[in-house]
Amino acid sequence: MSNRPELKQYIQDISTYMESRLQNALPASWQVPDTLQQSMLYSLMAGGKRLRPVFVIAAAEALGGSREAAAPVACAVEMVHTYSLVHDDLPAMDNDDYRRGKLTNHKVYGEAMAILAGDALLTHAFHSAAAALQAGVPAEAVVAIISDLAEYAGPRGMVGGQVADMQGEQGMTELGQLQYIHLHKTADLFMFSLTAGARTAGATEEQLAALRQFGSDIGLAFQIQDDILDVIGDEAKLGKKTQSDSKLQKVTYPYFIGLEESQREVARLTASAKAALQQAGLQDSSRLEEIADYLVQRDH
Amino acid sequence: MSNRPELKQYIQDISTYMESRLQNALPASWQVPDTLQQSMLYSLMAGGKRLRPVFVIAAAEALGGSREAAAPVACAVEMVHTYSLVHDDLPAMDNDDYRRGKLTNHKVYGEAMAILAGDALLTHAFHSAAAALQAGVPAEAVVAIISDLAEYAGPRGMVGGQVADMQGEQGMTELGQLQYIHLHKTADLFMFSLTAGARTAGATEEQLAALRQFGSDIGLAFQIQDDILDVIGDEAKLGKKTQSDSKLQKVTYPYFIGLEESQREVARLTASAKAALQQAGLQDSSRLEEIADYLVQRDH
Repeated sequence: MSNRPELKQYIQDISTYMESRLQNALPASWQVPDTLQQSMLYSLMAGGKRLRPVFVIAAAEALGGSREAAAPVACAVEMVHTYSLVHDDLPAMDNDDYRRGKLTNHKVYGEAMAILAGDALLTHAFHSAAAALQAGVPAEAVVAIISDLAEYAGPRGMVGGQVADMQGEQGMTELGQLQYIHLHKTADLFMFSLTAGARTAGATEEQLAALRQFGSDIGLAFQIQDDILDVIGDEAKLGKKTQSDSKLQKVTYPYFIGLEESQREVARLTASAKAALQQAGLQDSSRLEEIADYLVQRDH
Repeated sequence: MSNRPELKQYIQDISTYMESRLQNALPASWQVPDTLQQSMLYSLMAGGKRLRPVFVIAAAEALGGSREAAAPVACAVEMVHTYSLVHDDLPAMDNDDYRRGKLTNHKVYGEAMAILAGDALLTHAFHSAAAALQAGVPAEAVVAIISDLAEYAGPRGMVGGQVADMQGEQGMTELGQLQYIHLHKTADLFMFSLTAGARTAGATEEQLAALRQFGSDIGLAFQIQDDILDVIGDEAKLGKKTQSDSKLQKVTYPYFIGLEESQREVARLTASAKAALQQAGLQDSSRLEEIADYLVQRDH
């Protein structure tokens, strides 16, 4: 593996690959209203780490699968992630004007178009996933991928997590509520990405179970790390900001169990995730391990 | 066919069947936030003719297929139709307080929950469609059904029609624009329903093409008939209502080509639809023909 790229290069390569795939996500032969297409692409091409596509592709490659067979599924999960951000930002939801330094979709295209562009991205994700068949994935595996995408992104998954998050803003009294939110808002799409990528490469049920455990552990660790950085960041900024800053009121893991115990939980989950990987019998699990470390060790 | 039920009974039977299927649409083992589940079911169980499921099941049965194999797809299209109504009614869209005599979803559950319930219904539609595999539909057919659902409901289909409708409210100058809206807001889901039902029963490509033509013609005729009833109804009400009534400002087929020519267009499309059916070589096309007549001959 002498010419194996560094992790940062690997992520950058996938990100570049995804940009060109996503730019052409809508079939050129389709007649789609111009503004709708622009609104969809505005958010789809707004950058970000493309973390979920990285998981899809890394899982496929860990089983000896190809990037091309995994790509339709990688596009699908990025569309689902993007639609969720567009709808989350709406005035009736988080009412955010900016995301990643750019105006949010509804600030540019209006609220009605942002709702419809989100709906269109969510719908089109399933068109993209179904196209895995043309990329050589067996039909049974494609159906399983689509069923999983709907389960992990829908009422039992990401949307359920979003609802719990919204209701949690009225006050949370138990760590279990916060854990539910973290698991469903974030870990569910990680779990989908890993298992779906693995399914494109012919994973066994045992491998899928191990990757689910890995995704759940890493997803939760990722969110707890986020909570920790929120608290550390806010403490550093205390001199400048007032106590009314909404971030200071946010219920986090450290709020429930303290900073040190939260850090121990991240370490424990990371170890559990890696142990699951070792059990999975993958062709090469090293890239997934590197990604796990990268996600929980980040300091911003 | 001595014990063949009348059309109204047939539609009523399917409606009753669908109620029980839709009531149990979410797997009992799933942990879904209570309010989300209530909000989804509030709109899903709000009645209506279940026209799209009738198309799915009638098309399957026209090819000798079973209601049980078609049911997951019938549920899927009803979920897609329902989500589109929930989102259409939102304050940022049509801002409607009532639908079918009941408060709209956002009037009961709030705007954020209505957005999320719509998202959850749309996502779960694909879970339901994927479950056709367990009902005995071959995996290749299930993938084709899902790809079609995303195409007919997404940016090239229903969402595209919704965007054109929204933009058309700023003024429409050509009949082609109105035809685009009717075809995509309504006919596309009819076309999907017919072909997907037929796919569950092993339709050939020729049969699918014929059913697409049937669905397109009947969907457009259905909407032109709606336009005609709008105008006739408004003319009858002219004594009571003022010219500022928004319905009188609505751009309709009669607005562009007059009432009589619109009625001729309905007749022409209905004949074309029936001719397509005759070409399809179905086991029994009589039920679909009855449904076509029922839809275009209604007077309310």
